[in-house]
Amino acid sequence: MSEVVRSDAGWLSREEMDAARERLPIVYVDAVPVQVDAQGVVTAVGLLLRIGGDGQVKRALVSGRVRYHERVRSALLRHLEKDLGPLALPRVPPAPQPFTVAEYFPTPGVTPFHDPRQHAVSLAYVVPVEGDCVPQQDALELTWFTPDEARDPGVLAELAGGQGTLLLQALAHLGV
Amino acid sequence: MSEVVRSDAGWLSREEMDAARERLPIVYVDAVPVQVDAQGVVTAVGLLLRIGGDGQVKRALVSGRVRYHERVRSALLRHLEKDLGPLALPRVPPAPQPFTVAEYFPTPGVTPFHDPRQHAVSLAYVVPVEGDCVPQQDALELTWFTPDEARDPGVLAELAGGQGTLLLQALAHLGV
Amino acid sequence: MSEVVRSDAGWLSREEMDAARERLPIVYVDAVPVQVDAQGVVTAVGLLLRIGGDGQVKRALVSGRVRYHERVRSALLRHLEKDLGPLALPRVPPAPQPFTVAEYFPTPGVTPFHDPRQHAVSLAYVVPVEGDCVPQQDALELTWFTPDEARDPGVLAELAGGQGTLLLQALAHLGV
Amino acid sequence: MSEVVRSDAGWLSREEMDAARERLPIVYVDAVPVQVDAQGVVTAVGLLLRIGGDGQVKRALVSGRVRYHERVRSALLRHLEKDLGPLALPRVPPAPQPFTVAEYFPTPGVTPFHDPRQHAVSLAYVVPVEGDCVPQQDALELTWFTPDEARDPGVLAELAGGQGTLLLQALAHLGV
Repeated sequence: MSEVVRSDAGWLSREEMDAARERLPIVYVDAVPVQVDAQGVVTAVGLLLRIGGDGQVKRALVSGRVRYHERVRSALLRHLEKDLGPLALPRVPPAPQPFTVAEYFPTPGVTPFHDPRQHAVSLAYVVPVEGDCVPQQDALELTWFTPDEARDPGVLAELAGGQGTLLLQALAHLGV
Repeated sequence: MSEVVRSDAGWLSREEMDAARERLPIVYVDAVPVQVDAQGVVTAVGLLLRIGGDGQVKRALVSGRVRYHERVRSALLRHLEKDLGPLALPRVPPAPQPFTVAEYFPTPGVTPFHDPRQHAVSLAYVVPVEGDCVPQQDALELTWFTPDEARDPGVLAELAGGQGTLLLQALAHLGV
Repeated sequence: MSEVVRSDAGWLSREEMDAARERLPIVYVDAVPVQVDAQGVVTAVGLLLRIGGDGQVKRALVSGRVRYHERVRSALLRHLEKDLGPLALPRVPPAPQPFTVAEYFPTPGVTPFHDPRQHAVSLAYVVPVEGDCVPQQDALELTWFTPDEARDPGVLAELAGGQGTLLLQALAHLGV
Repeated sequence: MSEVVRSDAGWLSREEMDAARERLPIVYVDAVPVQVDAQGVVTAVGLLLRIGGDGQVKRALVSGRVRYHERVRSALLRHLEKDLGPLALPRVPPAPQPFTVAEYFPTPGVTPFHDPRQHAVSLAYVVPVEGDCVPQQDALELTWFTPDEARDPGVLAELAGGQGTLLLQALAHLGV
């Protein structure tokens, strides 16, 4: 009950959310889940397999909107738990500075990022996960790729909406 | 006219905007205008003098929302021009990574940042300005402070909504 | 044995090191050890109590030089283990971007940072530690401070060489 | 003369420098010169054409060591002026946080960066230039590439020592 009450103001009816999406940029977070070794070097990057709105199977990063009265880090944890399960043990970075900001436009070509549903401004973070990931809800599978495998054009092409570019930006930021 | 047409989708009636502000986090930008010397060292920080909604005179950073279908950097430039005038020659940083993200909550005390009107998630940037600043519209005055003067508790206390904290974060980031 | 062989090239006699310190900037790392809660929010900052070269007891961050042919992250881990013990479980950030660069000059006043022995250019990182810290070697004690306690002018004044400034920069970067 | 006096402490004989390079990591800076439009969007990246130590013509970023008692930003400006000429008007970023740290190892393969002469730890910055660039000294030519041209595998392959990777990291950081 308390969960419902607390989140109340952050929940919109589908119609209200659709209306907002046509008028305002929506605050989003993107998380790149990674596995690290004892030295903190990234050894693997996790990509979800999802069924998109168009029925197509696509790879995806962990991504979602920030609710009204929700902290950015709470939104990150909520979406990580929703997609990777409750035992993933994500280590959300202690500082709020994202490694980049991805601007998803409803019109393709304005930026490398595209979302036909909305204009989303997304804060992007790399998040080490230390536990067991069990994909949840609309995520069919989580696959771990080495940084080299993740950079493969075939893998990148399976990411929709420009998330292939965002993944490359994350790998560049990580220096791997 | 072209301004009206171009911005059309980004404009909401006051009622619609008020409704959205009670339901969704709003995307904002904060800019800390600075003067730099030939080596790029910050020599002065610019603070606006504004009349707030409550009729009180307060100091403020350059701050405002990002419109629908507007790039973050375009929003930064729009608010800088609105507050500092058309001859300020702001040098918006080439990379989208902000130095921090300020989360303004309508409830005081959740974060250091507070905005009674809305939940705003604000990308914060330091922006060198090279031209002449002439405050516009509801900005009464722009005052340049040395970094040491800006850190003065008396000056910081004149900044509302936690922007004193944001200014200290900017100075810390600048290493001055 | 392999440790000695591998580190061989990175070890200089005291005389050679002293000579180098008068001629070249030395690559350093600074680490701010922190404790975080389940959401990744920093709840405590760890400061060492050390006996300085002058026999004075001072607080200090974890700090030390990078050896020849040593990775920056390996140097961070080596100094964290040396000061906090082998069970501290430090989580070195996966990306090489430091939150700032502290330039310690042998002449006071050039920057906020001062080291009478040398010119050191130090890459500064915030490092969450998840295990048990047991100060080692010349570190007498490790004390955990809440962010508010750490900001206390009395505590900051006990940090030598400008590390009080670096601690404030870390807290500003963390948004706490 | 004043140049010689001021830099005195930072100058080592060739023999001393060679000895130091075999024993200590050397502090370096890398600068990626860029041209930006009125919105601060990067429109071109500048690459030098140099004759390397081996007599080969190679493309290169602006790069060089930090001297004893020299600020990082002064070293950046010195190397930019040395390579691009005195009228380039570089805008060194106001904050010391680099976009990444490149670790050049004398042994290939430890990191993506390699320098047979030394172990260099290099702070990397993107630097907008607003003036006229006239290559100097051992730089034969400066060529401006659009971001897309710069990403071309043929161009990247002409950069030695892993600077192709560093250029890609800069482009990823810039979001272009």
